[in-house]
Amino acid sequence: MKLVCKQSDLNSNLSLVSRAVPSRPTHPILGNVLLTADSEKGRVLLTAFDLSLGIQTSFAADVTSGGAIAIPAKLFNDIVSRLPDGEITLEDKMGESDSDEEVNSVIVTLTSKSGRYQMRGMSPDEFPELPKIEAGSAIQLPIKALTEGFRGSLFATSADETKQVLTGVHLIVDRDTLEFAATDGHRLAVVENSNWQEEGEEGEEGEEGGKEENSAINLPFELTLPGRALRELERMLGMRQSSEGEEASSTVALHFEQGQIVFQSGDHRLTSRTLEGQYPAYRQLIPSQFQHQMQIDRRQLLSAVERIAVLADQKNNVVKFSIDSSNQAIDISVEAQDVGSGTESMSAEISGESFDIAFNVKYLIDSLKALSTSHISIEMNSANSPVIITPLGGTKMTYLIMPVQIRS
Amino acid sequence: MKLVCKQSDLNSNLSLVSRAVPSRPTHPILGNVLLTADSEKGRVLLTAFDLSLGIQTSFAADVTSGGAIAIPAKLFNDIVSRLPDGEITLEDKMGESDSDEEVNSVIVTLTSKSGRYQMRGMSPDEFPELPKIEAGSAIQLPIKALTEGFRGSLFATSADETKQVLTGVHLIVDRDTLEFAATDGHRLAVVENSNWQEEGEEGEEGEEGGKEENSAINLPFELTLPGRALRELERMLGMRQSSEGEEASSTVALHFEQGQIVFQSGDHRLTSRTLEGQYPAYRQLIPSQFQHQMQIDRRQLLSAVERIAVLADQKNNVVKFSIDSSNQAIDISVEAQDVGSGTESMSAEISGESFDIAFNVKYLIDSLKALSTSHISIEMNSANSPVIITPLGGTKMTYLIMPVQIRS
Repeated sequence: MKLVCKQSDLNSNLSLVSRAVPSRPTHPILGNVLLTADSEKGRVLLTAFDLSLGIQTSFAADVTSGGAIAIPAKLFNDIVSRLPDGEITLEDKMGESDSDEEVNSVIVTLTSKSGRYQMRGMSPDEFPELPKIEAGSAIQLPIKALTEGFRGSLFATSADETKQVLTGVHLIVDRDTLEFAATDGHRLAVVENSNWQEEGEEGEEGEEGGKEENSAINLPFELTLPGRALRELERMLGMRQSSEGEEASSTVALHFEQGQIVFQSGDHRLTSRTLEGQYPAYRQLIPSQFQHQMQIDRRQLLSAVERIAVLADQKNNVVKFSIDSSNQAIDISVEAQDVGSGTESMSAEISGESFDIAFNVKYLIDSLKALSTSHISIEMNSANSPVIITPLGGTKMTYLIMPVQIRS
Repeated sequence: MKLVCKQSDLNSNLSLVSRAVPSRPTHPILGNVLLTADSEKGRVLLTAFDLSLGIQTSFAADVTSGGAIAIPAKLFNDIVSRLPDGEITLEDKMGESDSDEEVNSVIVTLTSKSGRYQMRGMSPDEFPELPKIEAGSAIQLPIKALTEGFRGSLFATSADETKQVLTGVHLIVDRDTLEFAATDGHRLAVVENSNWQEEGEEGEEGEEGGKEENSAINLPFELTLPGRALRELERMLGMRQSSEGEEASSTVALHFEQGQIVFQSGDHRLTSRTLEGQYPAYRQLIPSQFQHQMQIDRRQLLSAVERIAVLADQKNNVVKFSIDSSNQAIDISVEAQDVGSGTESMSAEISGESFDIAFNVKYLIDSLKALSTSHISIEMNSANSPVIITPLGGTKMTYLIMPVQIRS
C-alpha cells in the first residue's frame, strides 16, 4: 500500500471516525482505525467501529498501490493533527523487526515534509466488518429537519444505560411528519416536523434517488436510535454542512432493517444498532386540555431560572412558581434553609386562576435552552399533573415536565 | 449597611478576590468574602484570605450606611455573575429567623432589577485580618518587567508542596537588574531584566512616590515568592492593564518584611507569605563555556518536538537529538518499542562537532513555549552536562535543562 494525501483531508476524516473508537477497547483491534486505499478510485477509506457504533469516511488521495492496514487510532490521530498543512505519504510493509515473534506485524510509515514516523499496525483481517444493509429499506431525510429534531430531543434521553430504549430517541417517519421523541421517565420531549418531504425537495435529490426511493417504503415506520450514535450523527452532519456550505446536498439516506441502521451522507457513513424493546406510549401522557396557560419571554425566564438555580442547587433543585393572574406576573422562588433564599419576578400573559407549582430546575433549564423562539407557552392543570411547554411559532415541539410536590 | 453598586463592578471584583477563597476551607469563615462598605469614601472593599494568600480590591459605590459582613463566596459570586448589567442593592440586617439558635446570624439581602436574594452571612469579626506591613520596606516595580519575569520562570517551579522554596520564584532586586529564578531540581529558568528602574520611569510615578521611595531601600534584596500567589498576581496585573489600558500606572508597589509581602496595584492588593529557606545557589550550575552551539528557529523546533512527543509520551518522554554539524542539520527522534518510532529533521546553524544528546521532551517543550523570540540558541558541552537555551535578542533568559542518558 502506498498513497499520498493532504494533511487537512487525513486530519479532518481521522478526527471524525475516531469518535467511534472506544477509549478502552474490549479487543485490541477496536483501538485502531482501518485504513483502506483504493488505487482504482483514488480514494482512501477510514473506518472505526466499537461493535455498536461505526463511522466510515472516504476522501480523495493519490493511491500508488492499494491495500489496507489497521493503525492505532489515538497515536495516528495525535501525530497527523500536529503535522503542518502539506502532503503526507503513507506506506506499509511487513515488519522488519529483529525478533521472531514480530514477523507478522505490519509497520506503516508516515512521511511528511520534515518528519518520518513508523507505527506498528495490525492486520486488516482482524478488523470487524461494518454491518451492511443489503435487503433493508432506505429513505432520504432532510438534514435540516433531522438536526432540528435531534437538537430538540436528545437532551431528554436517559443517561442510565440500564434503561435501554430510554437512552435513545424514538423516530417515527410518516408521509407528512417526522416525529422525534425522548424521555428519561421524568420528562418528555417531542419534536414534530411536518411537510418534511417538501423540505427535502428544496435541496438536490441526494445520492440515491431521493423522492422515488422514499415512495417505495411502507410508511409510517418507527425506530429507536441510540443517543450516542445520534450525537455523532449531529456532529457529522454539522461538519459536512460547514465544509460544503448550505447549498450542498440537503438530505441524508437512512437505510434500516431489523436491529440496524446506516446513515449515508456524502462520503460519510454512520452505522448503529437500534435499541430493542417497546418504546413508551408517550402520546397518552400529554394532556389535551389545560386550566392554566401563560405566555412568557423565553430568554428572560431562562436567565431568571438560572440565577434561582444557584440556590436551588443547594436544595433538591426545586423551584417554586407563584403564578399571579390578577397582576399578570410570576414569582420564581427558592428557599434553601441555612443558606439563603431568592425570588425573581417577571411579567407574563396569564390565563386561568392564580396558583403555585414547583419544578426540578434542571429539567426546566434543559427545555428552555432546547427551544429557540423568543416566546413560549406553558400550560398546566394542577400542581400535580403534567406541564407542557411549547414554542410560540416555529417547528412544533412539546416538552412535558412533571411538577414536584410543594412542601407545605 | 446599605449600598448600591454596578453589577459589572461587583462582579469583576468578586471574581478577582474569589481566587483567594480556598475550595475546601479549613475554617468556615475562610469560605467567605469580607465585604466592607465605607460611607465616607463611597467605596466597597472586598477581601478574601486563605491564611497564606490574600486578595483585596475596592470599587466605588453609593454607600448609604457603612458596615461589614462576611458573605459565602461561591454563592455570592454565582448569583452576581448571573445577574444582568444594572444596579444592585446590598443591605444587611440581623437574622429574623424563627429559631433561637440563629439569632446571631446576619442576613444580607441583594436586590436587582427583577430579583431579590437573601444569603446567610457571618460576622465580620470572625474574618482574619490581612497581614499589614507597617515598618517594612517598599519599592515600585514596573508591571511589564514583573509580568515578563513571572511568565518566563513560573513554569519551572516545582509542583511538589514538600519541596518548599522550590515551589516559588526567587526574586532578586538590584539597582540595575530584576532577576527571577525558578527550578524544580530538574531544570532551571532565570530571567534577567536590566535597566528596570528606567522602565519604571517611563510610566507615571505610581501611587506611593516611585523613585524617591526606591532609593531609600537597601539593594540588592532577595525574596522567594510562592508560585500560587504569583499566578494570581499575574492575573491581577493583567486584569488591571486590560481595564485601564497600557497608559495607566505602569508600576506596582511591593512592600515586604520578614516572611510577608504585599503587592499594591491601584485598587488591588495581594498579600502572601514568602517562602522560607535558603534558595539553591543556581548561578554556579550555569556553565560559562560550551563546546557545541546551535541557533535554530524556535517555532519550527517546538512543533517538531510536539509531534515527536506523541510517541515519546509512550516511552519515558525521552527524545534524542542527533546534531550533524557537517550538514548543519539536526534529527530529533524517538524509538518507542512495540508502538513505533519517529524522526523529524530540520536545519540549524551548528558550531562544534557532531554528537548525540537526549532530553525529557516535556522540559524542552516548556522552555520553547516560554521563550518568544523567533530564533534561539542552544549551548551544550556533552551528553551528560547541563544544556543552556537562550533567546536570540530580547530580555535575557537562561533555561538550563539536564540531558537524559542515552540508552545504548
